[in-house]
Amino acid sequence: MKAFITGVAGFIGSSMADRLLSHGNAVVGWDDFSTGQEPFLENARRDPHFRLVRGDNLDLPALTAAMAGCDAVFHFAANADVRFGLEHPAKDLQQNTVATFHVLEAMRANGIKTIAFSSTGSVYGEAAVIPTPEDAPFPVQTSLYAASKVAGEGLIQAYCEGYGFAGYIFRFVSILGERYTHGHVFDFYRQLLEHPDHLRVLGDGTQRKSYLYVQDCLSAILHVMNAGTARAAKHRSQVYNLGAPEYCRVTDSIGWICESLGLQPRLEFTGGERGWVGDNPFIFLDTAKVQATGWRAELSIREGILRTLAWLQKNEWVLAQR
Amino acid sequence: MKAFITGVAGFIGSSMADRLLSHGNAVVGWDDFSTGQEPFLENARRDPHFRLVRGDNLDLPALTAAMAGCDAVFHFAANADVRFGLEHPAKDLQQNTVATFHVLEAMRANGIKTIAFSSTGSVYGEAAVIPTPEDAPFPVQTSLYAASKVAGEGLIQAYCEGYGFAGYIFRFVSILGERYTHGHVFDFYRQLLEHPDHLRVLGDGTQRKSYLYVQDCLSAILHVMNAGTARAAKHRSQVYNLGAPEYCRVTDSIGWICESLGLQPRLEFTGGERGWVGDNPFIFLDTAKVQATGWRAELSIREGILRTLAWLQKNEWVLAQR
Repeated sequence: MKAFITGVAGFIGSSMADRLLSHGNAVVGWDDFSTGQEPFLENARRDPHFRLVRGDNLDLPALTAAMAGCDAVFHFAANADVRFGLEHPAKDLQQNTVATFHVLEAMRANGIKTIAFSSTGSVYGEAAVIPTPEDAPFPVQTSLYAASKVAGEGLIQAYCEGYGFAGYIFRFVSILGERYTHGHVFDFYRQLLEHPDHLRVLGDGTQRKSYLYVQDCLSAILHVMNAGTARAAKHRSQVYNLGAPEYCRVTDSIGWICESLGLQPRLEFTGGERGWVGDNPFIFLDTAKVQATGWRAELSIREGILRTLAWLQKNEWVLAQR
Repeated sequence: MKAFITGVAGFIGSSMADRLLSHGNAVVGWDDFSTGQEPFLENARRDPHFRLVRGDNLDLPALTAAMAGCDAVFHFAANADVRFGLEHPAKDLQQNTVATFHVLEAMRANGIKTIAFSSTGSVYGEAAVIPTPEDAPFPVQTSLYAASKVAGEGLIQAYCEGYGFAGYIFRFVSILGERYTHGHVFDFYRQLLEHPDHLRVLGDGTQRKSYLYVQDCLSAILHVMNAGTARAAKHRSQVYNLGAPEYCRVTDSIGWICESLGLQPRLEFTGGERGWVGDNPFIFLDTAKVQATGWRAELSIREGILRTLAWLQKNEWVLAQR
């Protein structure tokens, strides 16, 4: 297979490139390096079956040209900056919704019909049902990020219905592991490097969230796509929640991180059950559908957080990037 | 109240302008006249409280300037051409999703925080639950039109959450009545004018659909907004299905139309349970939520179809417009 990966220099995109290359596939990687990291591609660039194209998803002709000859698209490029959407509302629309439309149009122009898409559990808003299944009640969007992702999902589904695409939509919890460059472990570790005796925590620390280790995430995506459910189903688009079969509290994660670092910082909570406007105090996805395909997460949330921390300790350069 | 209406020269927009003006409100109407009809504004233009601004929703500075001083926005402008979305996939994205974003940004720039939005029952795709309630299972989109509308809904909801807007999202069935310019009654009447002995019907005629008379639709919108549910609710955006508490088959509608015209045409069915790719063979919305506010439809579907036909007979100029 010759795969096209958008956001190839990002956390998940670069990890998928390495995985696909290690299995003998060819990969064309696409990134504008607005948040992508050159070092994440060091491994891939040593592989003769990897080709990197620098470009912007809003440049449809360049995107269409880069995609020529590929068999499937992994669309991971996104503005993943959930918290600050309200400061620049056009960004999610352009970089997530319009970008996804361009990816679909570039595929159509090239006759490529298989797409995997990184959506988010945030599309459930403040879910009425927890753990939240894929067919939860039609949600109310609570962030521009999630609104832009649900728009991307709808576009993919309409292309599957109208143009015969096969679409695999994955609603991720927060992903952890090597090459993780933003999120609470990143924030906490950076704070504790600066002031080991003091940790400022958004919200009241009781927020419950689920996470998934990046290699487990990649395994799930490839497992589902190999099973080809979207080619066989009534709807040629299929939606899968991806997450661990557990959740933890912010304070659990703080305990694991501090224990690992040998620190006992004073905790300062900013208060309130939400860390920011649009934050969801309880995210836990029902993953029975993906588990029914035979996939299982290998790492617990605690193990994922500790691997993330260990990687950040060895790669402190990423802390200076933001 | 000084209301801003996008798509003011359209079927629903012009009808809402007349209604609001008749109740003593001021109206600023906005339309690019790509599908809007000058004659629909004849009544409004005689009212000194009406001002028309010609412009395109994709021109954000002009939209922002036009909206200055208004209190609430009725966002009805849309590419409503559901059937032909696959022929020009950018159109729904630009004219529905991006346009809605521009309307929200223009509101934010002007400090206007109340919006009513014409969404569609098509966002439920091929609903698993019929009659379909607002909190039906998270649907799969089956048309670019519905995908663009669900994207608009998500944007409005995120603006309500993030910027304190009050949003009233109405998921319409097909609307009927005076100034109706496209849909099956239009198609059938135009055909029967050309060849009274023969009627070509998309699909097998068994498609079941619900409809609502335009004046009932306007009453429902204003009734819900006056009740102010979105100001009081947990979510400052509220979603309401709008439709009649009944449905009919295509063949029922043909019967009423032909009886009224005194014709007995030979029926030619194109076959299949869907009239076109993305057509939904059964649309019937659960309207218990809007009925719980005290609103009731005054006209039956049959009465709505007959009023539509009578209006088309008196206004055959619209048949030449498309």
